[in-house]
Amino acid sequence: MQLFGGIEAGGTKFVCAVGDGPETLREVRRFPTTTPQETLGRAIAYFREIQAGGDMLRAVGVAAFGPVDPRPGSPTFGHITSTPKPGWANTDVVGELRAALNVPVGFDTDVNGAVLGEHRWGTAQGLDTVVYFTVGTGIGGGALVAGKLLHGMMHPEMGHLRIPHDREADPFPGICPYHGDCLEGLASGPAIEARWQQRGETLPPDHPAWDLEARYLALGVVNVILTLSPQRVILGGGVMQAMLFPRVRREVRALLNGYIAVPALTEGLDRYIVPPGLGDRAGVLGAIALAQHAAT
Amino acid sequence: MQLFGGIEAGGTKFVCAVGDGPETLREVRRFPTTTPQETLGRAIAYFREIQAGGDMLRAVGVAAFGPVDPRPGSPTFGHITSTPKPGWANTDVVGELRAALNVPVGFDTDVNGAVLGEHRWGTAQGLDTVVYFTVGTGIGGGALVAGKLLHGMMHPEMGHLRIPHDREADPFPGICPYHGDCLEGLASGPAIEARWQQRGETLPPDHPAWDLEARYLALGVVNVILTLSPQRVILGGGVMQAMLFPRVRREVRALLNGYIAVPALTEGLDRYIVPPGLGDRAGVLGAIALAQHAAT
Repeated sequence: MQLFGGIEAGGTKFVCAVGDGPETLREVRRFPTTTPQETLGRAIAYFREIQAGGDMLRAVGVAAFGPVDPRPGSPTFGHITSTPKPGWANTDVVGELRAALNVPVGFDTDVNGAVLGEHRWGTAQGLDTVVYFTVGTGIGGGALVAGKLLHGMMHPEMGHLRIPHDREADPFPGICPYHGDCLEGLASGPAIEARWQQRGETLPPDHPAWDLEARYLALGVVNVILTLSPQRVILGGGVMQAMLFPRVRREVRALLNGYIAVPALTEGLDRYIVPPGLGDRAGVLGAIALAQHAAT
Repeated sequence: MQLFGGIEAGGTKFVCAVGDGPETLREVRRFPTTTPQETLGRAIAYFREIQAGGDMLRAVGVAAFGPVDPRPGSPTFGHITSTPKPGWANTDVVGELRAALNVPVGFDTDVNGAVLGEHRWGTAQGLDTVVYFTVGTGIGGGALVAGKLLHGMMHPEMGHLRIPHDREADPFPGICPYHGDCLEGLASGPAIEARWQQRGETLPPDHPAWDLEARYLALGVVNVILTLSPQRVILGGGVMQAMLFPRVRREVRALLNGYIAVPALTEGLDRYIVPPGLGDRAGVLGAIALAQHAAT
């Protein structure tokens, strides 16, 4: 059988799987992100087991934490580039995998992978301009624009958007080491924990933390709507509990205030701001979608 | 001779011209934007003169104030849609011109037209992902992404980005009727005039107005860099005096703070944030580029 391999290469863990879509996903394996040598070694060992088992590994895709170089043809294509994560700066992920496995390797940011997976199998099917935010340890944003993954000069860094921050209402200064109170600095999981001195999961739904969180996420989403004019915005990641969605939608509608007079934005936004259709498999399925793309 | 016609359809004036690029631009005619009937009538009369003069008018392009519907195939393609400008809501600009002139009509936002013109003849030649901001009576942003004009659900509205606003340093509440202190509410020409009680042109270069203006523009530019990852950002419009460019570049670099480790953004930004190569003809030449696009 022909299989595609996916690696969701996160800053804290790697998830590997094979298959050709949500129905056939199998052999999911998770391991912690340690050194590049050890972590990529475990990923390579995993795919070699697949190859040894008699299945043909057609291609591998990597949806990686960043910053990365996702531009095919660039001399550093497939590298994790200037990350502060110890040991990982300038790691040639694609080169290592290609040399070891001898298959085509697709590569992009974790969030571009996720938006591609959602486009193929999830809630972005049939759309051509879609944004995917992940809100967790950090905040990242990926986008499909006119049917193609958005790269531009390099790739988006939507987590670092500058948004209004009312220091009277919220004196917390933000935790981004580069920007202080950018979106990620104010609204990532670690920001919630640092502000309230307890982990987000332990805060009850009526805690003021959540209205504040919804407000900041809505400001980020609104800025991306105004810049990219997406047909849908997908919000995933560990922070995105179900009760946040109605609050984010309400804030987005209030912030736009009817300015963009299209029904998707002036009505309930229930189908405009949505969780990933693929749930927590969006990452690894996105990596498989990148593998399929690399194989064509 | 085969000619392309362009209409820079602004909220205060229309500019019409014919030609096939900067070298051949001729017959430039300007008139005020009054009612749709009168204003489109004058544009039609202008092009009929051209046709009567024996030149073949191959196509016409319109780069229009908005909001507009720029999506070919949409039932309201070529309309100015929900504008608050009296009389202009739901005006079928393309339908009127096509019926009167019997030629293909290209149509997009003024800023998408401008970025297309800059891509063909100006400072965006050879690039594929570029943003064009105009800063004048309002603020608008257009973009080319991977070589195509950005539409998404409708079109960008970058002028209405939400940005940090320190009310202690700048108590001015902003003038946007929809959002108060969005980018346009804080940094458009009328916002400068309302804040300082005098027109921007009369404020000396060392007036604090300009550092504040550069700060707000930089916040908007940074958010667009983080979302679209453009290869270049072009700033045009009546407010963009030459002395603003070094200040905006300095602020953008300070705000990004080295996070995106590409030379274009960590060095001087002299070639990254630039004025339009076509100067004040970017608008009407963009319209001609839209005409050429419609003719192919």
